[in-house]
Amino acid sequence: MSEKVREIYNGRVVRLFVESFELPNGKPATIEMIRHPGAAAVVPLTEERDVLLIRQYRRAASGFIYEVPAGKLDPGEEPEHCALRELEEEAGVRAGTLQALGSIFTTPGFTDEVIHLYLATSLETVRQRLDDDEVLSVERVSFERALQMCVRGELRDAKSICALMLADRLLRS
Amino acid sequence: MSEKVREIYNGRVVRLFVESFELPNGKPATIEMIRHPGAAAVVPLTEERDVLLIRQYRRAASGFIYEVPAGKLDPGEEPEHCALRELEEEAGVRAGTLQALGSIFTTPGFTDEVIHLYLATSLETVRQRLDDDEVLSVERVSFERALQMCVRGELRDAKSICALMLADRLLRS
Repeated sequence: MSEKVREIYNGRVVRLFVESFELPNGKPATIEMIRHPGAAAVVPLTEERDVLLIRQYRRAASGFIYEVPAGKLDPGEEPEHCALRELEEEAGVRAGTLQALGSIFTTPGFTDEVIHLYLATSLETVRQRLDDDEVLSVERVSFERALQMCVRGELRDAKSICALMLADRLLRS
Repeated sequence: MSEKVREIYNGRVVRLFVESFELPNGKPATIEMIRHPGAAAVVPLTEERDVLLIRQYRRAASGFIYEVPAGKLDPGEEPEHCALRELEEEAGVRAGTLQALGSIFTTPGFTDEVIHLYLATSLETVRQRLDDDEVLSVERVSFERALQMCVRGELRDAKSICALMLADRLLRS
């Protein structure tokens, strides 16, 4: 069976396709697939072992939720560059050191979105530059408190939980 | 400004909308939103402290990736029921005990998908029942090895990393 890919929508962030293809077991399958440019997310850790969290309005969550600074890759942009750029724009800090924490599939059942995760240290303050559609504030909490927020369900964003937990493992290793 | 929601596509798993609305700061915004029924994912932990992982073909990942057993909610289905059902269908085990680990937004920039996470124990073997489009095998690894796979980038699925890390915190508390 040959592949068949039908574009349903080409939007600002997502492209939706209906894709027919052959599974490794030889059977035909058809799925809905959101093709996404990918993103970067970063845990900004201060010398005092505090984390800069973003409290952001998300229509998908019907309100404000906590996240780490993050954003999608510009065309052709390297993930590290994106992480540093979003860190400046959203959290108003520049990082002296960026350590990779890995990359995740956010929800591989229907999207190819990959988010590259980083730990940022040696931070210095710069000017925050928000887009018009970004409604958010920066909240500084201790690293332990941020981990606790994940456990208690106060921080429910998957990329942020992954990044904080992987940063914790890195820092303890 | 009044809300305006335009349906682009109503599919088998996802519904795509373009939604115009007013932000909390009063500014107008338009976003692409995938409305999703939600899902459940579960860490099956044996008495020997092994985890049953799923190695599944995912077109979004262009190959096989490791995940914990998971699946989307049927209409009207409770998350706990979904978790137990997917555990039987995908991993071929029935759980005597299910503990909630919280719920996550997989990628709130463009979808309202929430995945409910659980830890399952007191497992007994039942018959695995796969859908035609599920190409997967069950792999049993130690809990410590599963955590290590997250750190080393061998397990890159966000819900699974969140579930394993939160289970680890629960088991250590």
